[in-house]
Amino acid sequence: MPIHNQICGQTQKANCFYILLHPKLYVTTMNFDLLRQLCAIHAPSGEEAPLTDFLLEYIGQAQQNWKVKPTILHGDGWQDNIVLVFGQPRTAIFAHIDSIGFTVRYDNKLVPIGGPDTENGYKLVGKDAHGAIEATMVADEEGEILCIDYPRVVERGTSLTFKPDFRETEDFVQCCYMDNRLGVWTALQVAETLENGIIVFSTWEEHGGGSVAYIAKYIYEQYAVKQALISDITWVTEGVKHGEGVAISIRDRGIPRRSYVNKIIDLAKASGLKYQLEVEGAGGSDGKELQSSPYPFDWCFVGAPEDHVHSPNEKVHKADIAAMVGLYEYMMKHL
Amino acid sequence: MPIHNQICGQTQKANCFYILLHPKLYVTTMNFDLLRQLCAIHAPSGEEAPLTDFLLEYIGQAQQNWKVKPTILHGDGWQDNIVLVFGQPRTAIFAHIDSIGFTVRYDNKLVPIGGPDTENGYKLVGKDAHGAIEATMVADEEGEILCIDYPRVVERGTSLTFKPDFRETEDFVQCCYMDNRLGVWTALQVAETLENGIIVFSTWEEHGGGSVAYIAKYIYEQYAVKQALISDITWVTEGVKHGEGVAISIRDRGIPRRSYVNKIIDLAKASGLKYQLEVEGAGGSDGKELQSSPYPFDWCFVGAPEDHVHSPNEKVHKADIAAMVGLYEYMMKHL
Amino acid sequence: MPIHNQICGQTQKANCFYILLHPKLYVTTMNFDLLRQLCAIHAPSGEEAPLTDFLLEYIGQAQQNWKVKPTILHGDGWQDNIVLVFGQPRTAIFAHIDSIGFTVRYDNKLVPIGGPDTENGYKLVGKDAHGAIEATMVADEEGEILCIDYPRVVERGTSLTFKPDFRETEDFVQCCYMDNRLGVWTALQVAETLENGIIVFSTWEEHGGGSVAYIAKYIYEQYAVKQALISDITWVTEGVKHGEGVAISIRDRGIPRRSYVNKIIDLAKASGLKYQLEVEGAGGSDGKELQSSPYPFDWCFVGAPEDHVHSPNEKVHKADIAAMVGLYEYMMKHL
Repeated sequence: MPIHNQICGQTQKANCFYILLHPKLYVTTMNFDLLRQLCAIHAPSGEEAPLTDFLLEYIGQAQQNWKVKPTILHGDGWQDNIVLVFGQPRTAIFAHIDSIGFTVRYDNKLVPIGGPDTENGYKLVGKDAHGAIEATMVADEEGEILCIDYPRVVERGTSLTFKPDFRETEDFVQCCYMDNRLGVWTALQVAETLENGIIVFSTWEEHGGGSVAYIAKYIYEQYAVKQALISDITWVTEGVKHGEGVAISIRDRGIPRRSYVNKIIDLAKASGLKYQLEVEGAGGSDGKELQSSPYPFDWCFVGAPEDHVHSPNEKVHKADIAAMVGLYEYMMKHL
Repeated sequence: MPIHNQICGQTQKANCFYILLHPKLYVTTMNFDLLRQLCAIHAPSGEEAPLTDFLLEYIGQAQQNWKVKPTILHGDGWQDNIVLVFGQPRTAIFAHIDSIGFTVRYDNKLVPIGGPDTENGYKLVGKDAHGAIEATMVADEEGEILCIDYPRVVERGTSLTFKPDFRETEDFVQCCYMDNRLGVWTALQVAETLENGIIVFSTWEEHGGGSVAYIAKYIYEQYAVKQALISDITWVTEGVKHGEGVAISIRDRGIPRRSYVNKIIDLAKASGLKYQLEVEGAGGSDGKELQSSPYPFDWCFVGAPEDHVHSPNEKVHKADIAAMVGLYEYMMKHL
Repeated sequence: MPIHNQICGQTQKANCFYILLHPKLYVTTMNFDLLRQLCAIHAPSGEEAPLTDFLLEYIGQAQQNWKVKPTILHGDGWQDNIVLVFGQPRTAIFAHIDSIGFTVRYDNKLVPIGGPDTENGYKLVGKDAHGAIEATMVADEEGEILCIDYPRVVERGTSLTFKPDFRETEDFVQCCYMDNRLGVWTALQVAETLENGIIVFSTWEEHGGGSVAYIAKYIYEQYAVKQALISDITWVTEGVKHGEGVAISIRDRGIPRRSYVNKIIDLAKASGLKYQLEVEGAGGSDGKELQSSPYPFDWCFVGAPEDHVHSPNEKVHKADIAAMVGLYEYMMKHL
């Protein structure tokens, strides 16, 4: 059910104020069934197709209840990406659907997909021609000698992902792949009431990118859209904390144009929603592909922070999720 | 002479089966004179022009005997690249023509072009305004303090490449620059019978790229081609061995879309040719430029493995070369 | 006042010969007031807007005295870049306007913008909502633990740059940000008499780029321009020295096409101006973005060398500046 219907009626404005006034009540009514489903789908970088299929089916049904039915771009020429175009778009949300993971090399050795956390004993799942696999990671103390403990040789090239274990408490949700199934989930909440805007479900983000440049080309050329928001999950650090609101990233390894980031910060202030400013020297997102693409995109990373990054135990505070959804709804109206 | 004429008559299908049935006979009849010539041409990244000129002359003559005469794109606007378009293309082969090497800095010191192997005593060749140069590499045990032993100061900016020493035995060919003159040679074998397809001779691959993005733009926009095969040479490792067939790379540092790689693997199975699957966490190819270009290319690296990578002694098994040529011919028909 | 008017009359040719014959006289009449102003403007990567504004105002007035009034492209769709188009352009000069610097993280800690030199005691300036800031850098001996000594907590995300201290002697100018305000200044000198050509004031160069690809797209598609010169400042090294002339870089981390670099070297010889050849294995410029863009640009870095790179004390020899301006004027006529 849409967040805004459960709590505060039809209008986004009302919704935002409601979160401000009664965060606890708001948070406790959020339903994470869809998030749980998203976290359980095997879709490491390069093998996003299962999540693409899930999303296409979900969107096909859910859009019956959306305020605006979007144009849905996918399939031939789009690889495993999906682009939703609503009304007269000014701004695009990018939410990557791929996850980190591992590729089985020779003799059950592993090479990473993206930058996964490694620890002896982590459970990994996947499948090859011989059937479903549930194996245990073997790593030394530095997490460097990586293979799997498994009774047979897994086919070379098989991808493995963390075994999902979705946990929900009064304040937190926790599972592998909050990064970035939560960014995808947020975009789907926003889709329910979105009148004008684009939502991009992108691929390969965790492993160097590969789809954002041509998607940027299309939406810039067809719709003159050059404002982007990166719906992704960031890190709990000494400056960004659980429950302090959605993080607006002033920079990571990449530096977005400050005048655009300042617009986002001004909107966050105006929204009345809880937010915190992030400043990092490392890390990246779909924003870095937009930055280097031959199109003049401005971009800003806006997302809830998580602890236990890139591990099976990514943990996010529900109040930060509520603020993330609320701020995205607000930005898509006012940016 | 075309491989398929020497051995098994007119049809590619027959050719493939023949390799399968009589690999030894097939391999012993391959003629490597052209490969020997290609390996001897000085063409490090940024200075590909001599090889471009050689190829243009070769193609100009050889195409008289090709099944289809291609459109030949080169010259102004193409830098030192060559693009051959045959019939109605669906798939493009990318074979880089540049090699690794060294640039002479000050006082006969060297900086690398790409990632060359270094060892005290390697012979290097080049020329500057004062004439031809044949010098000896001076390196410490880690291969790190690099200069040349030469009786005069070589002009700064002069490029040096390994001195070619082509060796052929019953089973192997060996020289510097199998990577990627063998990929170029393979593409030229395929050209003989190619009816529909594109062959790209690209530049700068060994040193960060620089031509593939605009070539991709052209062939996508003019021909709607978005399927690519990377004709390049890979590494003999604990999982990829001499004589076990052409390697199909499921991934290197980059991760191609798995559904496309699976198509290639299915074709390899159907071809009856000998192949082996490669999985690496490092290394790259023209595929990484296609991946990041603003065009939705699928790509897969398919190439014979070599030992003594990026040294003067790159060594490849003839049976793997035969399988490489055969699989490319098969893929260009059926992909 | 235009350099060529002060010294040697109307023609560029005369100017070049004059520099050759009487460099001292020429150098002592150069006026660096504009350079001093440029060096004092706070404009680190991502926050170039103040320098953009300054340049637009300067160009608006100065062009009244320019030989050709250019088309001025800026504003919406150009982020903080400026592109000047003169006559029928064949070649584009790229001069980046951003500088290295620091972003304040949490508790007055710093993360770098680009690759700044760090040393205990450097003075940094900036401003946040609470007012202007002049702080002192605190670094350990390796320059690695970085924060500022300042009596209050600076707002997170505030950018700081080196405090400018412009120094001029008979032979040298010295300040922070010669890299690349001197490249910008040079382009503005060239603008005075430029008849055919493009001048690009680009952004983000010090921090991974982000604007050159789409500017390249525009000038290639609109003007078929694919020749570029990078007006930037390089390093004094064992091979490149103060007073030995403008440096023509045969390569840095990137390798431009040698046939194009050779054209530049031939022009430099013909100009009679003093130049020196540079060969490096590291460092980069806007050239690397041109190289990877999906347009077939040739590029060459041509710029005076500086000592004390990326510190508050960047120092350049005036004779090298004179040679840089002269060579750019000559190249824009003859390339």
